[in-house]
Amino acid sequence: MRVADAVALIGLGHIGGSIARGLRAAGAAHALHGHDADPAARALARELDLADVVHERPEDAADAADLVVLAVPPAAIAPLCARLAPRLRPAQTVTDVGSVKGAVLEDLRRECGAVPGWFVPGHPIAGTEKSGAAEASSGLFRDRYAVLTPTAETEPERVARVRAMWERLGARVAELPPARHDALFAGLSHLPHVLSYALIELLAGTLPVADMQRYAAGGLLDFTRIASSSPELWAEICRANRAELLPLLERYREHLGRLAEALREDRADALRESFAAAKDVRDRLRGAP
Amino acid sequence: MRVADAVALIGLGHIGGSIARGLRAAGAAHALHGHDADPAARALARELDLADVVHERPEDAADAADLVVLAVPPAAIAPLCARLAPRLRPAQTVTDVGSVKGAVLEDLRRECGAVPGWFVPGHPIAGTEKSGAAEASSGLFRDRYAVLTPTAETEPERVARVRAMWERLGARVAELPPARHDALFAGLSHLPHVLSYALIELLAGTLPVADMQRYAAGGLLDFTRIASSSPELWAEICRANRAELLPLLERYREHLGRLAEALREDRADALRESFAAAKDVRDRLRGAP
Repeated sequence: MRVADAVALIGLGHIGGSIARGLRAAGAAHALHGHDADPAARALARELDLADVVHERPEDAADAADLVVLAVPPAAIAPLCARLAPRLRPAQTVTDVGSVKGAVLEDLRRECGAVPGWFVPGHPIAGTEKSGAAEASSGLFRDRYAVLTPTAETEPERVARVRAMWERLGARVAELPPARHDALFAGLSHLPHVLSYALIELLAGTLPVADMQRYAAGGLLDFTRIASSSPELWAEICRANRAELLPLLERYREHLGRLAEALREDRADALRESFAAAKDVRDRLRGAP
Repeated sequence: MRVADAVALIGLGHIGGSIARGLRAAGAAHALHGHDADPAARALARELDLADVVHERPEDAADAADLVVLAVPPAAIAPLCARLAPRLRPAQTVTDVGSVKGAVLEDLRRECGAVPGWFVPGHPIAGTEKSGAAEASSGLFRDRYAVLTPTAETEPERVARVRAMWERLGARVAELPPARHDALFAGLSHLPHVLSYALIELLAGTLPVADMQRYAAGGLLDFTRIASSSPELWAEICRANRAELLPLLERYREHLGRLAEALREDRADALRESFAAAKDVRDRLRGAP
C-alpha cells in the first residue's frame, strides 16, 4: 500500500479502531477518515483521536478515501456496498472484515446484482471478546492471519491493495475460497462461541452465580472468555454461517452422545482414547499464532 | 500449621510438586518427604530437589511425616489410605487433593470399613493443563480456593491442620459438603474438560490439522487449553463423578439442541437472548480469582 493512500474506516469498533491505530502507527495512510452508525461510537472515536475526521455519514468518509474498510457486522456489508456503489471512483477499493464470507457474497449478488470487482472480501483472524474501540490496539493484527476470499469477479489489483494494507499492519495474508473459509471458521470460531455461550447459560441455570464467581478456576474462565463477546454480533455470525454451523453442531452433539454412552457404560478405555486423541492434536496447536 | 511439621507428599506431579515448593518457600515444614509410584517422577523430583528425601515406598515417606498429602489421582487415594492405615501414629493426619470427593469417600468406606477420622478430603482449585513436576510452582495456590469436604467422621482438629497448610500456601480455604462439591465441579470443571476434548476431537476429524494450526485464533486456543490435560487423569475424574456429570452432559446436549433448533428456524431473537444471558453471567466472572 502506498503511504499516500487515504483510508476510510466504516465502523469504529474494536476491529475498525484497531485498524485505524495500526495504520497510523505504521505511517501507512496519509489521512484516516472514519464513520460509525452509532453516535456514541463516533464520539468515542473523536475522543480517542482514531481518525483525522469522523464523518456523520458513511458516504462522506468513503468519498475522502482510496481504500474503504467496512468494519461492520456481516449483514451490514452488502447494504453499505449498495449505498456506496453509485458514487465510487474507479480507483477506490472496498474491503470488509466479516467473520462469514458466503452469506456476504450472496447478499452482494442480491443487492448489487453481482459481486462488485472493487470489493475484496476479507477476514482478519484476530477477534477478541472485546467490543468497542476503547481497547483498540495498533498491534492487534501483528503475526495473525488476514484471510482474503476473492471471487472470480474480484479484480486482482484490488486484492493486491488490500493485501498490502494487512501486511503493513503486520498480518500474514492468506487467500482461501469463500466456501472453504466458512467451513473452516464454522469449526475454529463459530462453534466454539456457541458452545461457550451454551455452557455459561446452562451453569447459570444450575449453580448459584456466587459459587461460580468463587470457584471458577482458570480452565473455566479461559473456556468461556469468548462468551463475553457481543451477543448481537455473534447471533448474526451464527445465522449467516448456519449452513456450515448447523451440521457441525449436530455432529458435536452426536459426539457428546457417544462420550456420554461411554461414561454411562464406564468404558474407561474409550474415554481415555478419545481424550488422548484430542490432547495429541491440541498439543500441536499450542504454539499457533 | 506449625513450622516444625514434617510433610510427606505422596505423588510428585504438578500439584504435589507445587505443594512441596510452596511449603519450602513459606518455610512451613521442617522436613519434606516425597514419593511417587513412577520411577521417572522420583528421578525428576530428586533432580529438582523437591523434597529432602524421595522415598521408594509411600510408607517410608508417610512414616517420616506429621502431615501426609496424597497428590494422586482419585482412584489411588483409598488404596493408599488402606495401605497406610495400620502404621499411622495418632498424631498423623492425611489429606488428598482429588477433584472428586464422593467417589473417594465411597472407596474409603469400602476399603477401610469407614471414612477414617484422620483423613481430610481436600481439593485445591488450582489445576492447570500441566502434568508432571517440571513446571511445579510455589505460587500455584496463592489466592485460589482450597475446598475441604470433611464428613461427620472427620476429626475437627485434623481439618484445622490441613486448613493451616493451605493457608500457608496462600490459599483461601472453604468447606463444602462432599455432594455439593461434586455437583459444583461437575459443572465448573469436569463438563468443560469433556466439551473441550470433544471439540478438538471433532475438529481433528473434520479439518486438516495444518489449517487448525494456521488459523486457530485466541478464542479456540483458550477454549481448548484444558484439552491438553492428562487423558488418563481426566478419564478417571469423569468416571468417578459420572453420577453428577452424566445428567449435566445430557442437559447440555439438550440445550445445544434448542440452540440448533433456533438456528434452523432462524430465530434471531432467541439466539441473541440466549447469548446475552450468557454474556451477562460471564462478565460477572471475569474478576474471579
